[in-house]
Amino acid sequence: MYLNNSNQYKFMSTTEVKAYGTEAAEAPLNQLNIPRRTPTAHDVEIEILFCGVCHSDIHTVRNEWHNTMYPSVPGHEIVGRVLSVGGHVSKFKQGDLVGVGCIVDSCRECQYCQEGLEQYCEPGMTGTYNSPDAHLEGKPTFGGYSERVVVDENYVLRIPENLDLAATAPLLCAGITTYSPLKHWNVGPGKKVGVVGIGGLGHMAIKIANAMGAEVVAFTTSESKFAEAKRLGAHEVVLSKDPEQMAAYQGKLHFILDAVSAQHDINAFLALLRVDGSLALVGAPEEALPVAAFSLIPGRKSFSGSMIGGIAETQEMLDFCGEHNITADIEMIDMNEVNEAYERMIKGDVKYRFVIDMATLKGQN
Amino acid sequence: MYLNNSNQYKFMSTTEVKAYGTEAAEAPLNQLNIPRRTPTAHDVEIEILFCGVCHSDIHTVRNEWHNTMYPSVPGHEIVGRVLSVGGHVSKFKQGDLVGVGCIVDSCRECQYCQEGLEQYCEPGMTGTYNSPDAHLEGKPTFGGYSERVVVDENYVLRIPENLDLAATAPLLCAGITTYSPLKHWNVGPGKKVGVVGIGGLGHMAIKIANAMGAEVVAFTTSESKFAEAKRLGAHEVVLSKDPEQMAAYQGKLHFILDAVSAQHDINAFLALLRVDGSLALVGAPEEALPVAAFSLIPGRKSFSGSMIGGIAETQEMLDFCGEHNITADIEMIDMNEVNEAYERMIKGDVKYRFVIDMATLKGQN
Repeated sequence: MYLNNSNQYKFMSTTEVKAYGTEAAEAPLNQLNIPRRTPTAHDVEIEILFCGVCHSDIHTVRNEWHNTMYPSVPGHEIVGRVLSVGGHVSKFKQGDLVGVGCIVDSCRECQYCQEGLEQYCEPGMTGTYNSPDAHLEGKPTFGGYSERVVVDENYVLRIPENLDLAATAPLLCAGITTYSPLKHWNVGPGKKVGVVGIGGLGHMAIKIANAMGAEVVAFTTSESKFAEAKRLGAHEVVLSKDPEQMAAYQGKLHFILDAVSAQHDINAFLALLRVDGSLALVGAPEEALPVAAFSLIPGRKSFSGSMIGGIAETQEMLDFCGEHNITADIEMIDMNEVNEAYERMIKGDVKYRFVIDMATLKGQN
Repeated sequence: MYLNNSNQYKFMSTTEVKAYGTEAAEAPLNQLNIPRRTPTAHDVEIEILFCGVCHSDIHTVRNEWHNTMYPSVPGHEIVGRVLSVGGHVSKFKQGDLVGVGCIVDSCRECQYCQEGLEQYCEPGMTGTYNSPDAHLEGKPTFGGYSERVVVDENYVLRIPENLDLAATAPLLCAGITTYSPLKHWNVGPGKKVGVVGIGGLGHMAIKIANAMGAEVVAFTTSESKFAEAKRLGAHEVVLSKDPEQMAAYQGKLHFILDAVSAQHDINAFLALLRVDGSLALVGAPEEALPVAAFSLIPGRKSFSGSMIGGIAETQEMLDFCGEHNITADIEMIDMNEVNEAYERMIKGDVKYRFVIDMATLKGQN
């Protein structure tokens, strides 16, 4: 291997591994081969056992955010087992159960990286998929719908041994996406917290907020979800399309986590906040949301957003979930069922997260 | 005087005083008489010397917020001198220089009142004008465009002796409306703060943020205001309609105070915030403002609002302004010039606040 000083990764040696992805926005996912770098001294090589399916996967492979590099291999809810570690790796050893979330690298030098907010890295974090990969001449990073992945040890997480491994995969994105804002906005005992939308993100938010000791109020547009919401840990459930039920919560909530990614009336929920309350968006509706000045001004309220979480906080979340025995509610699929699963997700037909059994990729030719 | 137990104020004795107001949304303001209650043991009777003219005055007399009770007498930037005090008044004595802002009473019992956030009083604060007046059988409270006002001592402020009295009047609304959010969002040394809109509120925000020790960046749509903004205390000025100038501030500001009450692109300003930054709206555009999810999510940003400030905080602001010798830039008018002043304010033709010399009402028949 020849190392060029100006770009030491330019001629990095690689190995081909099997993956599932697509060459174009309109094409279905199918099997393809992708390069994985030969592990460096700081790398952990991971055999992927399970990978969760996130809405971002669909947005990316279909180029709905208009920034997709092809070929595109999604997947950032990765759990697996360590195959090998580089010579300088101190945190992991062969055989360890590990996870990889949405971040596989960042500048490590900006103030946000220094503060453990790698997700907000100033020059930009390296996403687990669809980011320029400095190791691969600017090819995109390839995600977890694949046999193996090679990641710097500083971006690898430890998985609690007591949790069901497949059901743990969604914690790497859906879990941290909800844990981080609940933590940031001080959810805990004595706090009344709303969770809007009971899907992949929302069902995690209900479980985590409950475990944090808060009083959890779930909001849904469908009465059929009431029993489900309570089973997940909601103390109260509100039919958000019923103005009378909504009025009863006016000014009552300390915080609202809004996990709806379709257009919806933010003002109706801001009205439920107490003085100094925040509503944090973690779903990402395509169109801008109209917010009335008078929804915010009388009550010093905030309409906020939050994006996944940093590496240390993701480990903290995993440990918290281990302690409280929290995993996602999942439906396991084979690798070749992923296109069908996407169609079902778009219709909201999943309780609550698809997880791919990666052994089924290995079995394919 | 007969006191009915179920409504002790029902037959409260009153005195008529001269005022300026209107009987209908379409009618200009003109002279009329209004009742002021005979001071109770806890009241301070104030001779009004100056009254600032706030945009809310116009919105109210013209019923633009669809809640105006007529006759309507606006004015909540009141400074004057104590004429008399009730037997239990301990904080003020005859001859004191005092101020009255937007609040003349509140429930005093809810948690927000207990925390000094009377502006967010749960059952609702009593506004200086256009609130049901428990002392006057539910007639509206009448504001500062009048000879005298009678206010419970707990809602009366002390005016620093060193400040120009007329120019102090606007502190009672424009001053506290900007001071409170600057304080709440921790503006001070080492912080870079944006102020959007250089009008009645914005010009106060620039002065106060500067005195708090922050680095102040003023945003304006007009290059003609650059020199003015610097004179007021801005360290840098940005032409907000120039995308290049705006781009230079991307991710640079800790906090933005947005004092624009016309429709404008909030997303363009949210982009200038650092991680965890907030933009607080104190102007109140009529139409809802479209906010993109991606303006908030990557950076955990907040779009917030803030409304005036509590009584203790208003006193703190007045003392701060006394210490730093801060007053508003004003244009003094006679009482009978107020209709014309409204027209000029609507065109933005005032630097930066009209203040009525109330002696000119006294002189009228």
